[in-house]
Amino acid sequence: MTHRIPPASFKAEILTIGDELLKGSVLNTNAEFLGKNLTGLGFCVSRQTSCRDQIDEIKINLRGALERSNLVIMSGGLGPTPDDLTRDAVAGYFNVPLKFSSSQYAQIKHHYRRHGYSVPPLVKREALYPEKSVPLINKHGIALGFYLRSLNGKLLVVLPGVPAELQNMFRELVIPLIRKYFRALSVRPSLVAKMVGISEPDVMERLGKGFFRDQFDFGIYPQAGEVSIRLYADKKLILHRLESIIRKGLSSWLYALEDISLSECVGRILKKRRQTLAVAESCTGGFLSAEITKNPGASDYFVGALTAYQNRIKEKHLGVSKIVIKKKGAVSAQTAREMACGVRTQMNSTYGIGITGIAGPGGGTRTKSVGLVYIAIATPKRSFVSGHQFWGDRQQVQIKAVKKALEFLWREIH
Amino acid sequence: MTHRIPPASFKAEILTIGDELLKGSVLNTNAEFLGKNLTGLGFCVSRQTSCRDQIDEIKINLRGALERSNLVIMSGGLGPTPDDLTRDAVAGYFNVPLKFSSSQYAQIKHHYRRHGYSVPPLVKREALYPEKSVPLINKHGIALGFYLRSLNGKLLVVLPGVPAELQNMFRELVIPLIRKYFRALSVRPSLVAKMVGISEPDVMERLGKGFFRDQFDFGIYPQAGEVSIRLYADKKLILHRLESIIRKGLSSWLYALEDISLSECVGRILKKRRQTLAVAESCTGGFLSAEITKNPGASDYFVGALTAYQNRIKEKHLGVSKIVIKKKGAVSAQTAREMACGVRTQMNSTYGIGITGIAGPGGGTRTKSVGLVYIAIATPKRSFVSGHQFWGDRQQVQIKAVKKALEFLWREIH
Repeated sequence: MTHRIPPASFKAEILTIGDELLKGSVLNTNAEFLGKNLTGLGFCVSRQTSCRDQIDEIKINLRGALERSNLVIMSGGLGPTPDDLTRDAVAGYFNVPLKFSSSQYAQIKHHYRRHGYSVPPLVKREALYPEKSVPLINKHGIALGFYLRSLNGKLLVVLPGVPAELQNMFRELVIPLIRKYFRALSVRPSLVAKMVGISEPDVMERLGKGFFRDQFDFGIYPQAGEVSIRLYADKKLILHRLESIIRKGLSSWLYALEDISLSECVGRILKKRRQTLAVAESCTGGFLSAEITKNPGASDYFVGALTAYQNRIKEKHLGVSKIVIKKKGAVSAQTAREMACGVRTQMNSTYGIGITGIAGPGGGTRTKSVGLVYIAIATPKRSFVSGHQFWGDRQQVQIKAVKKALEFLWREIH
Repeated sequence: MTHRIPPASFKAEILTIGDELLKGSVLNTNAEFLGKNLTGLGFCVSRQTSCRDQIDEIKINLRGALERSNLVIMSGGLGPTPDDLTRDAVAGYFNVPLKFSSSQYAQIKHHYRRHGYSVPPLVKREALYPEKSVPLINKHGIALGFYLRSLNGKLLVVLPGVPAELQNMFRELVIPLIRKYFRALSVRPSLVAKMVGISEPDVMERLGKGFFRDQFDFGIYPQAGEVSIRLYADKKLILHRLESIIRKGLSSWLYALEDISLSECVGRILKKRRQTLAVAESCTGGFLSAEITKNPGASDYFVGALTAYQNRIKEKHLGVSKIVIKKKGAVSAQTAREMACGVRTQMNSTYGIGITGIAGPGGGTRTKSVGLVYIAIATPKRSFVSGHQFWGDRQQVQIKAVKKALEFLWREIH
């Protein structure tokens, strides 16, 4: 929400082109990336639109965005196939012909030759750009980008839709461009608070009404076991007051005052303490391991993981006792504890995590229903375990179990 | 692209509300889910817009969407906090007051009590809906949804932004509603083809110009090592002709003629053959294991996985020889092969996969640069290994390595 405060002075809009976005064949990660980066640069991102690969629709949306905003970033529809019409639409909108960039074509030839292929005739289109625009050479792929300053001083930047290419070109070429054209751009002081193990209404109750005394932008976002708060204010002094209220009222759940993930936070603490971690998973099937190893440098503290999907793997590789599995079941507090202790011993790490449960949709019984998950932590001194009944589909149960496991470890070490 | 064909007769628009979407704090998975499902129901999804939590902006976007489309689905901004303004904006747009749903409030009380909490006063707002609209009771969370038929026969549906709640409510409540209000809705015959190990231009070359003889909608989408084609036509006969061209020209890469993932396809084949799989990962850190266990019922064919992040784990748990690691390095064809064979033997599975490489950003050397990955497959009869130089950041290298490993296994068993 905008809390009694004028929005940032420069407005930006994001226009993502492609039938695949509207048909839900592809997740729009470009909108997320551009939103985050433009906000970080100081823009108020006021709208994001996805439109179909149709020249008229692209033109209509481009017109609206250029009328409303100072900066428009378009992405997608620059591929080699006949359904890629963005460059034609932009050229049509500004009533200019397309030109051929021999620099980009050299880049295209280089790209194919490096992989040992000849250049398909189709891709020659990808070196085209509208006259009057300035080419943005794509060194990370084949489609040329370009930018254009409109008569009334608006900046339009057009980038390929392939996320890696868009991201690299944005960082290398677009950020310097934006800094040049929007010299008055200023980043509003902001604050991020990341919490785990608490609900959105509970965070609000703990902040209290006094929290909202001053003028500032406030956003609160619950996501799979976590809650984030984002604050923007014109004065740092206001943020300092808010930070101290957050620190006081939410210290039991607050794991970071910056935009890092819980796994990154846990990793940093482990690295600082020169301690290590190994994990044993069943129903989460590798998600916890993948979540930890997403972070560069995880090898400093992460020893390894075992996905023990079948019971015999739990017995053979983790030393979980056959009797425990038979008497208490593979989904039980005892099995989780033996998995945590087992992987810690087997992999010789400081800490061990064990997760066993029923992610669903199948596998539930009368006494153990889908969503039941046991999570155990083994430390050099002790081990502990807790049972949870998570709500949601297979993926949600997996994500919530991973978050809860990381939360327990964080509580133990921070 | 729309290939010389009129679009579907009913237009739908998606309006996702929330500063968090524009600031890139949250990935817009709701737009993807709604796009896929509305397309599946027979709508032409013509636009998707994200707008800020501001009453005026929500109203402007709602007006435009209702003017252009037959169906508008809005999501988000129905939470308990003061930045959640969607219900106020909709009530304001239709010039009606808000009403209180005691059925939803009973649901809210039940939700909190089940988890052993008392109801925070704040959440009472979540049972409000605009007069003249019909409440959609949310059994999966606390925020009430609602729908409304406008004077000119357009249908507006408003759903909470929490993905799990939105998805469940869409399936249980909105689909029956849509079927009731849009009786003339017809699903256009469509065809999906999923390919792996081939580039977008190469797919186009192999299809040839004759492929585009008839009138149909054509979309081609490259994504991390895969290419999908989606076709819509008014006559099944046309799709049959296209399918046979695809089958003939692309058989070496075509893994499915339906919308399933490569891991799902591999899983189905393994299950049918009553064979099993175990994997050993290093640079992919659990991603391959997680990708396989995403699929319900993976326990039928997946035995387990080892993330051997440190070399001593490769030696102790996979039997990779110390000498190989010392002489050839942890990132080498020999190590990958020993990992695949080791995990196959240790976990007693039909097939074993071994992956070792440098995902980056650190860890590269003069002779082995970031992106170098070795992938090995062990079968009951033989083992084979290949080296790859993948392009991109840490996450992309990991995803591409996972896809390539699944591709190799698919080539071996299909």
